[in-house]
Amino acid sequence: MKIAVIGAGAWGTALANLLSENDHEVMLWAYEPDVVESINTHAENRRFLSGVPLHPDLRASGLEEQVLAGAELAFFVAPSHVLRQVAAGCAKHVPAGIPLVVATKGIDRERLSLMTDVVAEEIPEHPIVALSGPSFALEVANHLPTAIVAASADPDAAQLTQRALSTSAFRVYTQSDVIGVELGGALKNVMAVATGIADGLQLGFNARAALITRGLAEMTRLGVKLGADPQTFAGLAGMGDLVLTCTGSLSRNRSVGLEIGRGAALNEVLQGRETVAEGVTTTETAKRLAEQHGVEMPIVNAVHKVLFERQPARWALVALMTRDLKAENA
Amino acid sequence: MKIAVIGAGAWGTALANLLSENDHEVMLWAYEPDVVESINTHAENRRFLSGVPLHPDLRASGLEEQVLAGAELAFFVAPSHVLRQVAAGCAKHVPAGIPLVVATKGIDRERLSLMTDVVAEEIPEHPIVALSGPSFALEVANHLPTAIVAASADPDAAQLTQRALSTSAFRVYTQSDVIGVELGGALKNVMAVATGIADGLQLGFNARAALITRGLAEMTRLGVKLGADPQTFAGLAGMGDLVLTCTGSLSRNRSVGLEIGRGAALNEVLQGRETVAEGVTTTETAKRLAEQHGVEMPIVNAVHKVLFERQPARWALVALMTRDLKAENA
Repeated sequence: MKIAVIGAGAWGTALANLLSENDHEVMLWAYEPDVVESINTHAENRRFLSGVPLHPDLRASGLEEQVLAGAELAFFVAPSHVLRQVAAGCAKHVPAGIPLVVATKGIDRERLSLMTDVVAEEIPEHPIVALSGPSFALEVANHLPTAIVAASADPDAAQLTQRALSTSAFRVYTQSDVIGVELGGALKNVMAVATGIADGLQLGFNARAALITRGLAEMTRLGVKLGADPQTFAGLAGMGDLVLTCTGSLSRNRSVGLEIGRGAALNEVLQGRETVAEGVTTTETAKRLAEQHGVEMPIVNAVHKVLFERQPARWALVALMTRDLKAENA
Repeated sequence: MKIAVIGAGAWGTALANLLSENDHEVMLWAYEPDVVESINTHAENRRFLSGVPLHPDLRASGLEEQVLAGAELAFFVAPSHVLRQVAAGCAKHVPAGIPLVVATKGIDRERLSLMTDVVAEEIPEHPIVALSGPSFALEVANHLPTAIVAASADPDAAQLTQRALSTSAFRVYTQSDVIGVELGGALKNVMAVATGIADGLQLGFNARAALITRGLAEMTRLGVKLGADPQTFAGLAGMGDLVLTCTGSLSRNRSVGLEIGRGAALNEVLQGRETVAEGVTTTETAKRLAEQHGVEMPIVNAVHKVLFERQPARWALVALMTRDLKAENA
């Protein structure tokens, strides 16, 4: 099958490589000319996934029309803050009716839309699939066992995605709850910042476990309000991805929190980073989304206070831990 | 309040110390004479919680009648495989009608009872509370923030436990789902062995996150069959404790799995350990309990195969990861 992958960060590159290894004819769109050159000449993405040998048949290009020509399936993996613009640039080149798989995680700053909605707004009349779950790109590229979820209102599109990606090491489960799967992927980045802060403050493993548990509860609360199935949050795209991002040492969002917890200011932490930590952006959008829907999200609020309202991290976290005693499900 | 704590392992000692710090008059029963002596003479439990200075008013004894005389509340924290015997030895000394708090985690080998049932069978006609949640003893002893659950069919007993233990750093939430809280605490130890094995095999963070997620799903399945509320498994005593035990570097159960995953045999790993890894015992009891109730628990079965049926760890774990593709909630 001819497949286009739009976005050549670590995750886009790992997905494109996986698809190439599955014998698909894959074209990867990269924004940066040096990434295109690095992949085509050295079979390596030296900027975003250095050290991983890519499949020799994988081709990259900076031209949307070239990447999308004849594609039967397209993946969108651009960072959340540029996804709308990237999708708009692709719109007129996407072959009619092919399924679009959205692997970007985040919430649109402007309209607070989910990423699948952003793509659907810019490229209408296609089946849409949300791809999410616990998946560090580097581990996928190194063929370590991974299980994720492909969610769509269109079962055929979800199953096509499942078949295109699956290997013995990479398991894809189908789902129909697009909202739950997407919110899980987006909100977990805020919780990763929160647990990073707690770890930076050296609050210990007990506090981290409590924070992750309370974090999933407030994610589920928002999800249910927006029409998601609460069960999705107990699955790979909810709890699974949350646990990965909050406890795996490789997570960018967690490392941002860690530095903040140790006393750094946000602008110091963000300086000199090659890639955006989605959790920082999502803290702001999640707070607005929760307010808009009248959902209480104490951890999102605490992270917002620390990142954007100059509240000392210790105060904000201690305030979370010392709320009035009550029954667990109250 | 006069409080008896039965069992002076790390967790019993940390609870007794916390209660002493809360100005209760606490007597701690220890099986080992050297532990009694160490606590009374050096205000330290050198065998099970070395390096932590204990409250000077905390007293230890090896005599059940001395520890329980006049107690208004009693905690049971003996290891699961000796709890019945220890409770039987206490029975005639327990003041009539006082609440009994069970902090032991496990499943009874003989009758597959929960730990609260074991205590209730040996010491009938008392309100019973199950205490569980993400709580490494060393962190509690060092006053790091911790949140756990006190579950009872008797709300007064749960609230008494909550008030007795709570400090600004140690939060206790009340609950009524005793079965769910206890099963969460017991079964998570099997999952910790499983993730330890996966880590020992260097399967990566993605696989660990998937394993934890699938683990919670099968724990919930068994719990629901036994009458628990599925929501409990999304709370502190379910997901919270599971995440702690499966990702915290201090967990005994995880370290057993880690060595097995690296190629050691179970008898080698168990040799020379001061304390029992509850997960090893619970693997066997959980398997029988699941079979008795016709509940599918593939991770419990895989761990059982590795620990007791000489199946190579890599085979068992890979078999888990390569089951037929299907929908996530199927």
